[in-house]
Amino acid sequence: MTDRVSVIILAAGRGTRMRSPLPKVLHSIGGLSMIGHVLRTARSLRPANIVVVLAPEMEDVAIEVRRLVPEAIIALQREQHGTGDAVRSAVEALPAEGAWLVLYGDTPLMTNATATAMITSIERGAAVAAFGMTPPESRGYGRLQLRGDQLAAIVEERHADEELRRNGLCNAGAMAFDGTRASTLLDAMEWRADKGEFYLTDCVHLADQRGWSCEAIEASWVDGVGVNSQAQRAEAEQLFQERRRTEFMDAGVTLTAPSTLFVSADTSIAAGARIEPYVVMRGNVAVGANVHILGFSHIEDATIAADAVIGPFARLRPGANIGERAHVGNFVEVKNSTLETGAKANHLSYLGDADIGAGANIGAGTITCNYDGVAKHRTTIGAGSFVGSNSSLVAPVRVGEGAIVAAGSVITADVPDEALALARSRQTVLAERAPVLRQTFKDRAAVKKAR
Amino acid sequence: MTDRVSVIILAAGRGTRMRSPLPKVLHSIGGLSMIGHVLRTARSLRPANIVVVLAPEMEDVAIEVRRLVPEAIIALQREQHGTGDAVRSAVEALPAEGAWLVLYGDTPLMTNATATAMITSIERGAAVAAFGMTPPESRGYGRLQLRGDQLAAIVEERHADEELRRNGLCNAGAMAFDGTRASTLLDAMEWRADKGEFYLTDCVHLADQRGWSCEAIEASWVDGVGVNSQAQRAEAEQLFQERRRTEFMDAGVTLTAPSTLFVSADTSIAAGARIEPYVVMRGNVAVGANVHILGFSHIEDATIAADAVIGPFARLRPGANIGERAHVGNFVEVKNSTLETGAKANHLSYLGDADIGAGANIGAGTITCNYDGVAKHRTTIGAGSFVGSNSSLVAPVRVGEGAIVAAGSVITADVPDEALALARSRQTVLAERAPVLRQTFKDRAAVKKAR
Amino acid sequence: MTDRVSVIILAAGRGTRMRSPLPKVLHSIGGLSMIGHVLRTARSLRPANIVVVLAPEMEDVAIEVRRLVPEAIIALQREQHGTGDAVRSAVEALPAEGAWLVLYGDTPLMTNATATAMITSIERGAAVAAFGMTPPESRGYGRLQLRGDQLAAIVEERHADEELRRNGLCNAGAMAFDGTRASTLLDAMEWRADKGEFYLTDCVHLADQRGWSCEAIEASWVDGVGVNSQAQRAEAEQLFQERRRTEFMDAGVTLTAPSTLFVSADTSIAAGARIEPYVVMRGNVAVGANVHILGFSHIEDATIAADAVIGPFARLRPGANIGERAHVGNFVEVKNSTLETGAKANHLSYLGDADIGAGANIGAGTITCNYDGVAKHRTTIGAGSFVGSNSSLVAPVRVGEGAIVAAGSVITADVPDEALALARSRQTVLAERAPVLRQTFKDRAAVKKAR
Repeated sequence: MTDRVSVIILAAGRGTRMRSPLPKVLHSIGGLSMIGHVLRTARSLRPANIVVVLAPEMEDVAIEVRRLVPEAIIALQREQHGTGDAVRSAVEALPAEGAWLVLYGDTPLMTNATATAMITSIERGAAVAAFGMTPPESRGYGRLQLRGDQLAAIVEERHADEELRRNGLCNAGAMAFDGTRASTLLDAMEWRADKGEFYLTDCVHLADQRGWSCEAIEASWVDGVGVNSQAQRAEAEQLFQERRRTEFMDAGVTLTAPSTLFVSADTSIAAGARIEPYVVMRGNVAVGANVHILGFSHIEDATIAADAVIGPFARLRPGANIGERAHVGNFVEVKNSTLETGAKANHLSYLGDADIGAGANIGAGTITCNYDGVAKHRTTIGAGSFVGSNSSLVAPVRVGEGAIVAAGSVITADVPDEALALARSRQTVLAERAPVLRQTFKDRAAVKKAR
Repeated sequence: MTDRVSVIILAAGRGTRMRSPLPKVLHSIGGLSMIGHVLRTARSLRPANIVVVLAPEMEDVAIEVRRLVPEAIIALQREQHGTGDAVRSAVEALPAEGAWLVLYGDTPLMTNATATAMITSIERGAAVAAFGMTPPESRGYGRLQLRGDQLAAIVEERHADEELRRNGLCNAGAMAFDGTRASTLLDAMEWRADKGEFYLTDCVHLADQRGWSCEAIEASWVDGVGVNSQAQRAEAEQLFQERRRTEFMDAGVTLTAPSTLFVSADTSIAAGARIEPYVVMRGNVAVGANVHILGFSHIEDATIAADAVIGPFARLRPGANIGERAHVGNFVEVKNSTLETGAKANHLSYLGDADIGAGANIGAGTITCNYDGVAKHRTTIGAGSFVGSNSSLVAPVRVGEGAIVAAGSVITADVPDEALALARSRQTVLAERAPVLRQTFKDRAAVKKAR
Repeated sequence: MTDRVSVIILAAGRGTRMRSPLPKVLHSIGGLSMIGHVLRTARSLRPANIVVVLAPEMEDVAIEVRRLVPEAIIALQREQHGTGDAVRSAVEALPAEGAWLVLYGDTPLMTNATATAMITSIERGAAVAAFGMTPPESRGYGRLQLRGDQLAAIVEERHADEELRRNGLCNAGAMAFDGTRASTLLDAMEWRADKGEFYLTDCVHLADQRGWSCEAIEASWVDGVGVNSQAQRAEAEQLFQERRRTEFMDAGVTLTAPSTLFVSADTSIAAGARIEPYVVMRGNVAVGANVHILGFSHIEDATIAADAVIGPFARLRPGANIGERAHVGNFVEVKNSTLETGAKANHLSYLGDADIGAGANIGAGTITCNYDGVAKHRTTIGAGSFVGSNSSLVAPVRVGEGAIVAAGSVITADVPDEALALARSRQTVLAERAPVLRQTFKDRAAVKKAR
């Protein structure tokens, strides 16, 4: 279909009900802006054109659109005169042929399958195809009026009769048009003076009047979920998460408690992986086969190779690259660092800007001092080395292969391969001194209290 | 209405079904005792009197009541003879005029709106007003019997006919009385010998018999949710949390996953704040505008100013005071400490009893040693200073403005402004020593194993 | 009943729909394999025999069965010819008397109560008893056809009439047989050529034809939940968790948010304990009376005595043994270690292979260096001692009773009772050196950038 499809995305709504300074379509679902979700679905159709309709002064949305789909055309709707007017704003950017698919920037869960069904309807000869659905609560939606197999009109709820209200499909908003006939219909739309709007839905009965075929495409209501408030955004997030969790489970991922896993739009998890309760993934995350992620782990823009073990209480930050069979344990933060095969950092560590060789063992409390207050520097830890607990590695620094760093050391200079490095003080023991010291502390506390 | 309202709170029930040593009404919802919730609603009505009816030997409840509402009057119900008897116990503390509102200590979700509607009914001339509701499961509740607009009686479920059982409003318990007529009704209640109780609900038909007007006040069943078991307490907690989450979202707070946020009765969150999955707030928490709280954060009795970034895995304890644009990152605990504007503590630190100046940078693994085993001491860290990783600051101590503490230092004496402080050992490297040491360890392990 | 019961567990299914290399019945619920759950229920009946039917090449399942119930008999079903064939595979291992109870390895939530009801039916004279249930979604299940009180047949859904489909009990699978008549029925089963199977359910109408009494045992559908996919496993996990949470609440445990607690099959929690949101327990966990567990705690194979306080962000690993009134606080990991009464480790510590005496205070950032790269060693910390913050205790080592370790020390040798040990450097202050150092860093960064 590809050359013959144009996608128009309506995104000019201000979204005041979000009560947020952020434009509505920039609110995110699974960490990706809502307009980003719609753009992805649009792109998955391999269309000839994508036109995004924005209101003036939505430069931040335009930036997001260009960032994600540089070739998208941005059309401006000067004043908010309804969906019909919005599509008219895009007409001059569109070829007068092929299928025109109208999507909404605030309907982020639209799938390729539903969009394709609408386009296919046009390719089979319909002038207009409209997406009809059966949401859990139908109040507030227009209804699709059928005549046999034909879609005759989209009727506002207040004009629908009892039977249509109860049994009719709800209008989900998205529609497709035959480009050769679309302009005729758009030109024929009536001005709704009471609302100050042109209704795109009017095109259906206008086509029907002309004897042109229209079709209702029924699909899951989830694809039609729209977002107008914070609460509705949260519901869409919930549906998005449920969809992804089901996909992962169907592919053979074991989720102990699916409802506790939050993923991003760019998370991939291989079959055989096991995810325990309470894991959050953000940004671009790839989880390999048979990886085991324990609870309370927070993973962002990171790659985890097969058979690695992560968590509980692990934080992988952008650029964390965890090798096969490597372990990242509790209260460990990894940022912009690579752990090669089988390397282990199991306890209370900060590994930033570090390259850690295969089989290296990073002791509890190890900290890479990667920042000097001005710039960041790298730490290299050789394969097979052993970094003792509570060590500080002041970057730039290299611990050689097979080297040992003694516990509690502050390492400021490179450690050669197979060397032992120490940087700590000799232990002094003052016998029977503890009771004296305690008394001193008590005296001080008494003085402090007296003041 | 204020001068003319008295609130009676019935809280004499033992709550044995909780199977807990704690009296039922001291179990909490959103971190506030159930009786505390009801007292808050009572106080929000600005009544002339609040009378709490307790059983003897409920001194811990009396303490909680006095702590929260010192002017509340405590009345004792000597023996548990039902709701009618309980209200009678309060009569001598009440003026024989105005509206008397009867609430329940184990019905913590009652709102000002529903309470006000009952009082207004009395002020408009009703002798009795009763709160009727339609809970998801009506079994077990009495029903409100209407005669036209008039409430005629409250009927026990076993005495209700099929029609009333199916369609009648359920008796939520809370009632309001006209004080001038209440005593007459209370005196007229019949003794239910089989139960050993006087039923407060009898007052409705007693008023109706006298030709006095009674009214049913319909309101959300959530306001009427009562708690008699641990499971019911958990359900009330859930409803309380859902109510608060909706309020926050309606006010413009972005909750990625509302069902994962737990707040307290004293949490405030400003519009524009964003809260990621898995955040728990307890006690008195104030979150400013555009604050971003990442997942797995635990916040208690703390203040977070605008544009701060908290978490993931942050713990703010009582007295944490986080300034504008300050950052508290992963595995960082802050207690009784202030971070001024733009200060950062991003990794694995304990900041207790500390004052941290604007723009200071606290390195990973920094620990304020605030406790000497006897008393707590303060640490002061100057604006613009840089505390290197893995440092220990032994309080009382001051790090000056613009000062630098080298990584791994134990700071026991004040550091002047702009000074550099070090307290660590020089590094020693023993070439080729690692294999020897490993062999020693292996030999020791073999010996240990052999024993 | 005990001597007269044999349990047959059918577990030969390959479980390809799990899309997992792990055999289906080894997938776990509450941390215990599904076959483990069924074996526990079987064992709770104190039967004379337990026979598990496996397919060839399921050695890993056989190992799990023998690990959990060494006396279980394993029977092989050579080819997968249906449930009837599977039971036939077990016949020679069974006595021709008493009740035979047939359970399924992928139906992990079967309870003793439901199993007992089926056995009792046989003991009262029935030839066959079948478990009937009313699941939320009945599609896909066979139906139990009754004739008065008698169970006449188990009918495939496609053969059930409208009335039976709508109102009949669904066949949950589990059945019981009178051993003296079972072989007759099994021998009489017809070969279903279209499916290549013998249906165990056929035994009902075969018994009915012979005038032998059959009985439908109705019980909760939860007991009949079967697992064939990752999603169904997750649903069973959810039901298991809900069952356990309810049991704990009924017993007097306060769960702030029950749906956020995940427990294992081997978790016990005493009345009076309070569990805040987001706690995960795995393996063998025992929580004592009045223990308070704060959020984001991860507890595995650990014991917590009365009045202890755990979390938030605590990790107890296998062998953690927390004494009465002991505290384990945020970002603290305890492994294979004992904290005696009233000992405290409240911040950012790793305690591995340690014995910590009563009332000892472990400062923030304390790390037991228990691993030298070859073997693990123990650390002993005496009662009443005080370990200063950021200390490293290099095991094997002993800190004496009442001793004090100064903050930031690396302790490599034993510290006598009541002694004070230090192992740190004297502090050096270089006045006005910070700006110079900052300039050096800036110059370096500029050079680095220029390269």
